[in-house]
Amino acid sequence: MDRRTFHHTLLVAIAGGPFVPERSGAVLRRLQQPRVNGDRLAASIARLAQIGRTSEGATSRVAYSEADREGREYVIGLMRAARLTVSIDAAGNILGRRNGNTASLPPLMMGSHIDTVPGGGNYDGVVGSLGAIEVAHTLAEVGIALRHPLEVIIFQNEENGKVGSRAVRGEDPASYLDLLTHSGRTVREGIRSIGGNPERLGDAKRAAGSIAAFLELHIEQGGPLDPGGIDIGVVEGIVGIRRFEVTVDGFANHAGTTPMDQRRDAMLAAARFVDAVNRVARSTPGRHVATVGQIRAEPGAVNVIAGRVVLTLEIRDLELATIDRLFERVRAEATAIGEATGTRFALEPYYLSMPARCDQEIRAIIERSARALGLSTASVPSGAGHDAQEIAQLAPIGMIFVPSVGASSHSPEEFSTPAAIAAGADVLLRTLLALDAR
Amino acid sequence: MDRRTFHHTLLVAIAGGPFVPERSGAVLRRLQQPRVNGDRLAASIARLAQIGRTSEGATSRVAYSEADREGREYVIGLMRAARLTVSIDAAGNILGRRNGNTASLPPLMMGSHIDTVPGGGNYDGVVGSLGAIEVAHTLAEVGIALRHPLEVIIFQNEENGKVGSRAVRGEDPASYLDLLTHSGRTVREGIRSIGGNPERLGDAKRAAGSIAAFLELHIEQGGPLDPGGIDIGVVEGIVGIRRFEVTVDGFANHAGTTPMDQRRDAMLAAARFVDAVNRVARSTPGRHVATVGQIRAEPGAVNVIAGRVVLTLEIRDLELATIDRLFERVRAEATAIGEATGTRFALEPYYLSMPARCDQEIRAIIERSARALGLSTASVPSGAGHDAQEIAQLAPIGMIFVPSVGASSHSPEEFSTPAAIAAGADVLLRTLLALDAR
Repeated sequence: MDRRTFHHTLLVAIAGGPFVPERSGAVLRRLQQPRVNGDRLAASIARLAQIGRTSEGATSRVAYSEADREGREYVIGLMRAARLTVSIDAAGNILGRRNGNTASLPPLMMGSHIDTVPGGGNYDGVVGSLGAIEVAHTLAEVGIALRHPLEVIIFQNEENGKVGSRAVRGEDPASYLDLLTHSGRTVREGIRSIGGNPERLGDAKRAAGSIAAFLELHIEQGGPLDPGGIDIGVVEGIVGIRRFEVTVDGFANHAGTTPMDQRRDAMLAAARFVDAVNRVARSTPGRHVATVGQIRAEPGAVNVIAGRVVLTLEIRDLELATIDRLFERVRAEATAIGEATGTRFALEPYYLSMPARCDQEIRAIIERSARALGLSTASVPSGAGHDAQEIAQLAPIGMIFVPSVGASSHSPEEFSTPAAIAAGADVLLRTLLALDAR
Repeated sequence: MDRRTFHHTLLVAIAGGPFVPERSGAVLRRLQQPRVNGDRLAASIARLAQIGRTSEGATSRVAYSEADREGREYVIGLMRAARLTVSIDAAGNILGRRNGNTASLPPLMMGSHIDTVPGGGNYDGVVGSLGAIEVAHTLAEVGIALRHPLEVIIFQNEENGKVGSRAVRGEDPASYLDLLTHSGRTVREGIRSIGGNPERLGDAKRAAGSIAAFLELHIEQGGPLDPGGIDIGVVEGIVGIRRFEVTVDGFANHAGTTPMDQRRDAMLAAARFVDAVNRVARSTPGRHVATVGQIRAEPGAVNVIAGRVVLTLEIRDLELATIDRLFERVRAEATAIGEATGTRFALEPYYLSMPARCDQEIRAIIERSARALGLSTASVPSGAGHDAQEIAQLAPIGMIFVPSVGASSHSPEEFSTPAAIAAGADVLLRTLLALDAR
């Protein structure tokens, strides 16, 4: 769709009638203008930041905590002010709905989450949640009715397992109901505490094809927008993740009496493995990442050669095939290191998160929407997981990133400027209108 | 002293009179024969192994435990059977004494310890303890009186800090009295529980020069005797030890969203450091060892790049200068790794154990004693710490190693054959007699 067709269609949708060429100049100028209220959005973000604020300046609003429930109450109030009809689904997700003009159309959905990691910030999830409510508020204020029903969704517990979006996607609840969360509650107890019904999670499930599109606005995590001075990230997709537990077995022995050439040192082998993971990742072209973040040595004494080291390996990429190719190279390195050091490696996969591609057409619409607003854009992968990734199995998705100062995330240092957030919300608004007009 | 002079002097000592050339042939043959009772020694070792035996077949007789106290009772009984006069010093060390013929001479001392590491074996310390008692028993049986007083000493708590020998050496008790031990008791409580007096530890101190010589028989730890088919290790000295806490500071960041080339990964830097330690140690000629046995990553999550890694570095050698030279090379590697990875290394020394050289003349006597018994010998360093190391500051010391099958130590697999132990005790006996004759 070129820009002219886009505006034409938009006018049809908003006016609820046929396009009238002679009015188009004036109407177009007016209708091009709908913009979110950036000040109101900044104020609501600042208010929410107070809920769960710690003495160290972090925001700790872990799912199912008192702060989380208080934050949810605040969000429900914002939704009502935006003239959305609020409900809680069986999974505890907060839904704000407004009907569209065409009853037969499936809803357009947008949203994110408001729970945080322990000691986190107030932008991850919040920008997309309050941004979506602000878009709905703006539409109500300027009197624009959509063809599609509009749903703003605040997924519960993203940070501790994407529980709300997994329930909407319809994952077997047995896989998460009994997990203990940072709140001290299990997911089951947590869902009950926020007004959901863990016995009827099937009611929260949406059928594939029952959502017209899902949009999520989010802060970038790790660049490149802020460092590059780019306004908007058009997300290509959310990376897949494979995690492995790597066990290196050597032979525990006296560190004083075992000569250097008679050791089977699991620590040495593990160290070479960590270095090899980095070398394999860096020597292979692409935007994949590979990380060893956890390590434990046994017996773990200053004067004992480690007999066993257990560590984690995580590989992420937009393509599962790339992850698997990297892993095979890492595995070959492990085998060689084992032979050279008299140790044995076991690499056990224990976690897989499938990559999710953003919809090509929605990416193009986000791109055009940003450019129409005079904003610069870059195509970026999302290295982190998001609720959108789950919804990608039911509907076409689009994600919009805004710069995070210092590319910080999951930390009290998280910060995006009010102008950057307002720009992101404006892109969200325009993209929504364009999707409604399709 | 050549062998002829040695035997001459021995005869004088034993016979308590002048050397009579015409009787020397027959007497020499008889007097060359005093041998320990290997069966009795093996039986007492086997009996002691039952005290503290766990269901897994290990021997757990940690200092100040019920098993330790039971073991001590058993040892006191053995001493009395060997016609030694038993006392407990203020530090809780067990002393078995017999006067010599020359009242003015300082005592010849021999001994070791009977406490074990948790889940250890029954040879480390035990062989030297019961071997010394067996030597005293043999002397009493064959009616050989020494010129010097004889003291068999069983140092308390070697494995958890060489407490007994440090008290004898006269170290400030403030450095160890409040340490918590594997028994759950502090050293202070432990000393009280075994009949010592923690308020009067000065009474256990011996003055420099007040001991004629100290001998310790011990199993080898880590080879090379058993692998090499060598009967007796003549210990050159006990290695010095320097320990460092190494802190690597990088920057904790999201493992999914931080590109490989923008990381300051403390885990990667630590891994390269571990490899560098090994490379430096192995590329430098010598018998030193360098070990990283402990490691901890922060925050230690599968999906977070480590912001900090803390690990230990231990270097051992007979020469402190060698340790320091190796450390400087390791430190230079750390600096280079820090620059290459955007991390910073801090290497803090926190422990020093001074090397202790065995007395040259005693080494020569041990060597000759072994060869006279038809035993093969090798000069070896002791990579592990021993009570003898503390006593080295008061008296000339000698250490005799016997082979440990599979070079195992500090484990239930510890095992030395009864024949190897008897041979070691015979060398101890001969060395003692030679020293007495000096």
